[in-house]
Amino acid sequence: MNVAFPGCFSGRTMPAIQSKTSVLSATRTLNWETRPVADPGPHEVRVRVRRVGVCGSDVHYFTHGRIGKYVVEQPLVLGHEVSGVVDAVGPEVTRLKVGDRVALEPGYPCRRCTFCKQGKYNLCPDMTFMATPPVDGALSEYVLWPDDFTFAVPDSISDDAAALLEPLAVGIWAARKGEVGPGQSIAVFGAGPIGCTTIQAARAAGATTLIAVDIEDFRLDLARKVGATHTFNARNGDPLDFIRQLTAERDGVPLSHAGVDVAFETGGTLATTRLALASPRPGGSVVLVGLPPDPEISLDIAGAAQREAVIKGVFRYANCYPTAIELVASGQVDLDALVTHRYPFAQTPEAFEFADREKKTSMKVLIDVQ
Amino acid sequence: MNVAFPGCFSGRTMPAIQSKTSVLSATRTLNWETRPVADPGPHEVRVRVRRVGVCGSDVHYFTHGRIGKYVVEQPLVLGHEVSGVVDAVGPEVTRLKVGDRVALEPGYPCRRCTFCKQGKYNLCPDMTFMATPPVDGALSEYVLWPDDFTFAVPDSISDDAAALLEPLAVGIWAARKGEVGPGQSIAVFGAGPIGCTTIQAARAAGATTLIAVDIEDFRLDLARKVGATHTFNARNGDPLDFIRQLTAERDGVPLSHAGVDVAFETGGTLATTRLALASPRPGGSVVLVGLPPDPEISLDIAGAAQREAVIKGVFRYANCYPTAIELVASGQVDLDALVTHRYPFAQTPEAFEFADREKKTSMKVLIDVQ
Amino acid sequence: MNVAFPGCFSGRTMPAIQSKTSVLSATRTLNWETRPVADPGPHEVRVRVRRVGVCGSDVHYFTHGRIGKYVVEQPLVLGHEVSGVVDAVGPEVTRLKVGDRVALEPGYPCRRCTFCKQGKYNLCPDMTFMATPPVDGALSEYVLWPDDFTFAVPDSISDDAAALLEPLAVGIWAARKGEVGPGQSIAVFGAGPIGCTTIQAARAAGATTLIAVDIEDFRLDLARKVGATHTFNARNGDPLDFIRQLTAERDGVPLSHAGVDVAFETGGTLATTRLALASPRPGGSVVLVGLPPDPEISLDIAGAAQREAVIKGVFRYANCYPTAIELVASGQVDLDALVTHRYPFAQTPEAFEFADREKKTSMKVLIDVQ
Amino acid sequence: MNVAFPGCFSGRTMPAIQSKTSVLSATRTLNWETRPVADPGPHEVRVRVRRVGVCGSDVHYFTHGRIGKYVVEQPLVLGHEVSGVVDAVGPEVTRLKVGDRVALEPGYPCRRCTFCKQGKYNLCPDMTFMATPPVDGALSEYVLWPDDFTFAVPDSISDDAAALLEPLAVGIWAARKGEVGPGQSIAVFGAGPIGCTTIQAARAAGATTLIAVDIEDFRLDLARKVGATHTFNARNGDPLDFIRQLTAERDGVPLSHAGVDVAFETGGTLATTRLALASPRPGGSVVLVGLPPDPEISLDIAGAAQREAVIKGVFRYANCYPTAIELVASGQVDLDALVTHRYPFAQTPEAFEFADREKKTSMKVLIDVQ
Repeated sequence: MNVAFPGCFSGRTMPAIQSKTSVLSATRTLNWETRPVADPGPHEVRVRVRRVGVCGSDVHYFTHGRIGKYVVEQPLVLGHEVSGVVDAVGPEVTRLKVGDRVALEPGYPCRRCTFCKQGKYNLCPDMTFMATPPVDGALSEYVLWPDDFTFAVPDSISDDAAALLEPLAVGIWAARKGEVGPGQSIAVFGAGPIGCTTIQAARAAGATTLIAVDIEDFRLDLARKVGATHTFNARNGDPLDFIRQLTAERDGVPLSHAGVDVAFETGGTLATTRLALASPRPGGSVVLVGLPPDPEISLDIAGAAQREAVIKGVFRYANCYPTAIELVASGQVDLDALVTHRYPFAQTPEAFEFADREKKTSMKVLIDVQ
Repeated sequence: MNVAFPGCFSGRTMPAIQSKTSVLSATRTLNWETRPVADPGPHEVRVRVRRVGVCGSDVHYFTHGRIGKYVVEQPLVLGHEVSGVVDAVGPEVTRLKVGDRVALEPGYPCRRCTFCKQGKYNLCPDMTFMATPPVDGALSEYVLWPDDFTFAVPDSISDDAAALLEPLAVGIWAARKGEVGPGQSIAVFGAGPIGCTTIQAARAAGATTLIAVDIEDFRLDLARKVGATHTFNARNGDPLDFIRQLTAERDGVPLSHAGVDVAFETGGTLATTRLALASPRPGGSVVLVGLPPDPEISLDIAGAAQREAVIKGVFRYANCYPTAIELVASGQVDLDALVTHRYPFAQTPEAFEFADREKKTSMKVLIDVQ
Repeated sequence: MNVAFPGCFSGRTMPAIQSKTSVLSATRTLNWETRPVADPGPHEVRVRVRRVGVCGSDVHYFTHGRIGKYVVEQPLVLGHEVSGVVDAVGPEVTRLKVGDRVALEPGYPCRRCTFCKQGKYNLCPDMTFMATPPVDGALSEYVLWPDDFTFAVPDSISDDAAALLEPLAVGIWAARKGEVGPGQSIAVFGAGPIGCTTIQAARAAGATTLIAVDIEDFRLDLARKVGATHTFNARNGDPLDFIRQLTAERDGVPLSHAGVDVAFETGGTLATTRLALASPRPGGSVVLVGLPPDPEISLDIAGAAQREAVIKGVFRYANCYPTAIELVASGQVDLDALVTHRYPFAQTPEAFEFADREKKTSMKVLIDVQ
Repeated sequence: MNVAFPGCFSGRTMPAIQSKTSVLSATRTLNWETRPVADPGPHEVRVRVRRVGVCGSDVHYFTHGRIGKYVVEQPLVLGHEVSGVVDAVGPEVTRLKVGDRVALEPGYPCRRCTFCKQGKYNLCPDMTFMATPPVDGALSEYVLWPDDFTFAVPDSISDDAAALLEPLAVGIWAARKGEVGPGQSIAVFGAGPIGCTTIQAARAAGATTLIAVDIEDFRLDLARKVGATHTFNARNGDPLDFIRQLTAERDGVPLSHAGVDVAFETGGTLATTRLALASPRPGGSVVLVGLPPDPEISLDIAGAAQREAVIKGVFRYANCYPTAIELVASGQVDLDALVTHRYPFAQTPEAFEFADREKKTSMKVLIDVQ
């Protein structure tokens, strides 16, 4: 029986619904729990989850229990690539209605600090971001979420693709930071899911020479399928030689002044970081999307600086979901192409074990929650 | 017999070649002349002309003998949309060789003034621009041109398309001024050649909602063929109503705050200028590519200002040819689709008469020089 | 007797305080009322008002009962240039404490819409802006305000100056829109309070040639006192001739290419709008801060467009208060210099009558509320 | 005896003038030579040199015979901070006349490549830059120079200051790269001449909190004199603690999100590079003006990237001289304050020995050529 408790500030009656939830209770241990999900507050919606994508960060929490300074110290629900259907709306919600198919932008800010006021809400010190300790993610039948970070998607976007708007948002943010424009050349070091969405975003922004670099042909093949015009397996030679020859000819400049307009590091390794730093033309850009494993790495930053490279880091994203929806709905980006494996909700633990084991032969693993 | 005269500063021997040339000697009067074309100077190339596109400005000089402050006071060669083949190169030229297929960027600057040094060479007070009195254009078998404003094109770009890189450069410049980006909405008022290349450039930059507005279905159909997602014939209703409804729904904003991200005026009329000014969302942009016929027009500039619209004018373009070549070579832009009519060089006068008479049923008229 | 009513959502107990308030009940009619002011909600502060500046818009509501589409349809409290002292803080407030001297940014947005999320909160469709019907202003002993739009000021900023941070915010926003930078030249058409704060903001941004144009020497003298390097009374000649001569010499360009880097219209007249549009150099900017009196005005927009002028409107401002505080606290801007007249709270009606009557001989009129 | 040789391309008659010149013939060996200086070519001026500043790079060539990849392989004239008087002008020169007091921008580009056309001429592959092997500098009585890189200065700029426009140009370029604006906070790591001109440029751009960090009080005292609001001797503690405390309080943010808006590295050391990378707020910028001594250095680039720091390198500058002249002429920047020592031309070798020996007790050493 549901008993309503009047709650000050939220106006919720709770608990309204029981939600089967996958909880990370220890390293490599996902347990099932049934958790209550409250009625939505004034500006909240309750979403019945359809798909959750498995992200590298989810897998890392699953296998290591931490990512850098973020440590799992209490049971944590994973999953932050989420699509679903609106199940209930709070009394102040006007932009959404029950039954709307939606994607969730998985982090919301304080809305009041200097960063928020300036539109840089991804830098808000008081961010609530799914599946980042101690905030729970979406591997659950139902989630509550603020309406302004919940986006209706048209029928032309599948449930799978709606979940994958999240990694596409990362790619869009990276392309925006790199100021990619029509006719430009880019190189992406690391052709995993983020590498591929970065390629897709850069292509949508008009880049015409898109070079994917990786050490796995499986990934390079998929990168080409989603937009790379050139692929290079770094096991077979020096990507920098390849990039410089290609761009020197393309742009009619001497080798000393050749290079891509924008280089993206998405591999999170020392090697890819060093390559990214060395590959732009004078005045070009480097966008660091992945992060090297060690806090201190040895780099030729002077070389980059002398070429007036602009090096930019990426921390999540801001204001990218509307763009992501437009790009997928218009057919400019095909997110379904990235889904290589799929598991039912009941096999969530198997999905994580698979994603950890088969990095080289999988791109994106999805969980069909319901 | 050619006798070489050693020339200080240029090192040219002249005259080297005789070039059949179409010369505007009076309103609606194009005569044939044979003119000598010198050997190229140190940084010059001599180009055997293949195609010349007929631009609205050429037709206007043909019919009126002037455009605003530019008055034809001596015989003038028309034509500034030009492709050809390199026929000879000057001694300092390294970027091009005889036989290269090329497009000519039809204006070159002084290279020394403040504007040039800042990369805004289109604003140089000392510009040499083809077919703008008193500078001759390219309706001739041969032209001399600086090598740095002559661009080799790959085989994937036809001679026709190479000539039409010029109006595409205008569209690219307009899209750049408007800062068009992925997922954005744009409206183009006037779907002539420049309207169409603006649509093509905006689409290449990632715009997903592209609205073409005109009063001729012929033009709107072609606009749709080259990338418009929506077309609206202004004879059938108020384009602003259409735009606001569409964008309010698209962006989830109230009608009062709806509008396109960027509006382009390419029609050069009072009506299109007023529409362009009224159609952006708050904070959106208006790019004035065409020019209204009268120096003074009555506008609701306060309304635009209160919405913080950014209004930008366009005067020619700078640094757009490399981008244009990339977009056409990569297949993102199809310039051949714009060619509706074609005349041999010998029928140049007929081509101009046709272009003047059949504005509503033609898009781009090309002249096959050789 | 105060009786506390526990209120869901706000946690306020009300009414807590009685506040003497000046209310515009009809054209040119300011009445006194005593109004209750509630305890602050969770993120609110209650401020004891010290100074209120009289703005041109306040005077316009006072004399006309409307500004454009904003119509006073119920009694309205005027005043939106406000300083005071924090009197009480809500339970969630951490950035401020009782006794803090503060300035109020007089508008706050919904914090949830697309505009807010992008940092363009001044364009929010759901803005609450003081003294804009039907939202009350600050001509009252006490006001409640959100803590994130209330700014502590250091002792180096007087109560007067703290109130005048508001018009300075307008000037800063205008200078930001114009992208004023070191060594640039600017012209300001209209040397009233907003013209003067625009000069101050442009000077703080590094402009070295600052031309003030007006038709009142009183204003021009004050403009020079706060930073103008040149003043020009438009009764004595054509400001454009003056500007072009000056900048042609300064920048070493021909007269045809002379002009200021940025022109600001702050006078709200047809004449100043036309001057502003004509005065930038090729590629320069025009910022429309004031608004012409008629919705339709006749302009040479083609001329501006052909010079690639960038025309920007200004609607209020966003994220300018911290900058304003820094500029005044550091001594780069002297707001006290703008105060020419001062009235006690009890003479608020006289202050408005004076401000209306003596526009030509006053700059800024302040009301000492307490 | 002067014999005129008619020269094709240049039209020069040579040699016209004998010029006493200081030539670096071996490490720490400056010899005197008399070299002919030709009449100016069409767009050239001949300048009688007045002052040459001794730059750290000059001293490094003097002591080591190389800087990185630039190796002195033949006798080299040093000096690239130059003022003088126009002594003769070429036939095409209109912007300058004999007798004009001028400053020389010491590098000029090819004017034809992609970089030049885009206004990024500092990145031109074919730059002619004074005192960079094998291009001679200005430690000579006369130099020939292109008129478009020769700038007339007003009487309010001394000969000394005119020479020091060069290091100011570096500071302006750095501030421009950092996009310093009104009210911002900056930190400069390394308070030598470039650190000081960076402070001056940032202050002129409106920065209100300017923190100089060095290990020499002599330099910090001078930095404060020219605009630093705070100085910190890194021998006395951790500059990052100081910066974070100061900015957290200033900006009302938690320590985790504190930092300067822009950090400048001007010291060219590992320590200052690491400090610069760690000191901006989230979303802030790092400008690398100096260069670390080793090509590979160990950095926490991931930390910077996760805060979305923008890291930019600086290679010389472009289009900064007009700004520099404006800032000095208007009194916003005082370059004379940087001159701590002065040598007559005849004591050029002593000047270099002194500059090398007394780095800690000198700021800028000037040579009075004549």
